[in-house]
Amino acid sequence: MAKPPRLDEFQRIARFFAPLAGPGALGLTDDVALIDGPRGTQYVLKTDAIVAGVHFFPSDPPRQVAQKLLRVNLSDLAAKGAEPVGYLLTTALTAAHDETWLKQFSAGLAADQQAFGIVLLGGDSVRTDGATTLSVTAIGRIGKGTAPLRSGARAGDTLYMSGTLGDAALGLLVLKRKSVVRGKAHREFLADRYRLPQPRLDLGRRLIGLASAAMDVSDGLVADLGHLCAASKVAAVLETARLPLSAAVRAALSADPSLLETILTGGDDYEILFTAPASARKKLARLPVTEIGRIERGRRITVLDGGGELMTLTKAGYRHF
Amino acid sequence: MAKPPRLDEFQRIARFFAPLAGPGALGLTDDVALIDGPRGTQYVLKTDAIVAGVHFFPSDPPRQVAQKLLRVNLSDLAAKGAEPVGYLLTTALTAAHDETWLKQFSAGLAADQQAFGIVLLGGDSVRTDGATTLSVTAIGRIGKGTAPLRSGARAGDTLYMSGTLGDAALGLLVLKRKSVVRGKAHREFLADRYRLPQPRLDLGRRLIGLASAAMDVSDGLVADLGHLCAASKVAAVLETARLPLSAAVRAALSADPSLLETILTGGDDYEILFTAPASARKKLARLPVTEIGRIERGRRITVLDGGGELMTLTKAGYRHF
Repeated sequence: MAKPPRLDEFQRIARFFAPLAGPGALGLTDDVALIDGPRGTQYVLKTDAIVAGVHFFPSDPPRQVAQKLLRVNLSDLAAKGAEPVGYLLTTALTAAHDETWLKQFSAGLAADQQAFGIVLLGGDSVRTDGATTLSVTAIGRIGKGTAPLRSGARAGDTLYMSGTLGDAALGLLVLKRKSVVRGKAHREFLADRYRLPQPRLDLGRRLIGLASAAMDVSDGLVADLGHLCAASKVAAVLETARLPLSAAVRAALSADPSLLETILTGGDDYEILFTAPASARKKLARLPVTEIGRIERGRRITVLDGGGELMTLTKAGYRHF
Repeated sequence: MAKPPRLDEFQRIARFFAPLAGPGALGLTDDVALIDGPRGTQYVLKTDAIVAGVHFFPSDPPRQVAQKLLRVNLSDLAAKGAEPVGYLLTTALTAAHDETWLKQFSAGLAADQQAFGIVLLGGDSVRTDGATTLSVTAIGRIGKGTAPLRSGARAGDTLYMSGTLGDAALGLLVLKRKSVVRGKAHREFLADRYRLPQPRLDLGRRLIGLASAAMDVSDGLVADLGHLCAASKVAAVLETARLPLSAAVRAALSADPSLLETILTGGDDYEILFTAPASARKKLARLPVTEIGRIERGRRITVLDGGGELMTLTKAGYRHF
């Protein structure tokens, strides 16, 4: 008998977990949950885990592992315009992660607590015989009802993103020793963008009242745009000619134009993808964001190449299973 | 050169993580963190992880694994008198945990959500090549300032616990095929107490205003009493003659009196250990709790055997490292 095809992460969530979701869970279609806080506020709750050998290299400097762990969570708070409050940390460590490792790991946490204004609230430490697994539940605070959700995009809105796209995807190739990028400075820049996401907390706060929908780009731009459009029940046109690209990515792309697909679908960007109505355009012009397309009626994600022609992508982005 | 001795979990927390703790973290000496909620409430936050091969058997029914995961967290909410609100779930699954496994796992969550009045708020699912690791961050709600902390015990208070002690520790021996217990009914009762903790949520709520300090017993009574006394800066006398024991444990103990140490130091009881002043005695007499000792000045944990003589224990309870 043929086995049924395996479900991907999103199908698993929809089938097994969405029926368990309560109020505040946003149907598990957003990146975060919301619960009421004191005096007209809401808490934004986010949990994200990283596994050695899957999300980081076991040999990565423990300080950077700590920072990546915290930042991937802070990036989700940033996309909701939240101010960081605190986090809970769960460490499942192998015997190889001794006190020297922990000392550097906690130094990384300390540095990022200082940089991003968040404190440790609690946690759990367990032993594992498998792969070291680290997870954080981050808590942020916003004015009640102000967080831009995935579901708020409307036909006619403009599509924007922060920062630059594809740095981390090419950085990962560099770290895997695939010589796709010339120039040591470019390679170091890209590897660093993979290792150390920059949560856009300040920008996120300034998008409150302007963005109609927002999320962070972590699974690849095309896949995440698909999630945003599915939650908002809209279509999108993405114009690749407008994508904000770093000098390093532009150099790599001009040497090998086929890398465009990696840039569009690779993960770990941790930039904010958002939509906004025309009324926000003037204010957004003063912020470090780039217009990359538009929202339309329908359900399709249309990707236009540099000449405005329809692109066909062979894979839609990072899938966990 | 000799390697320095490895730190245990509590030393690791004190050295590497306590310096990172912010307000609400209670210095990482309690089981939970507290943050302000709406209208005179506080949220109680707790995170606990379980690892296949360490905290559960990979062959355990997935439904029970889900229930244990949720209940070990609910037990901490119970000890603080909190009403469950919601939880975030992180699953790091191996390829062996297919959709059949997930279906049963989510059915276990659904059953316990119903039983204990909690809903899923969000989570993360990642793949692991190591051991399946599951973690929950549970959120409960209490009146602000009403949660009995670990640090509230005072000399002169009486020491109490809920339920019965040692069932899970002997249940684990039964499951490991050590024939310490005669009688199938006894063995099944004990194994069930190991597999399915009963979070004492109703009792916990009724202890608000009565208990001066409280925590759940998960790492063994003697070790956890030590944590409570350390946080409260007090001493305790534990009278083993008064311990509440199930019929199954009493039978095992009369066949092999040396099991008393396992009962006192074994983990996974998930009962509430608490202290209360004399003024609460009358009200406590109506609740399903047992007086097991007293709080005194000093710092020692004194354990008296059945004849009132001082006992010496060879190990103080479950340590994670």
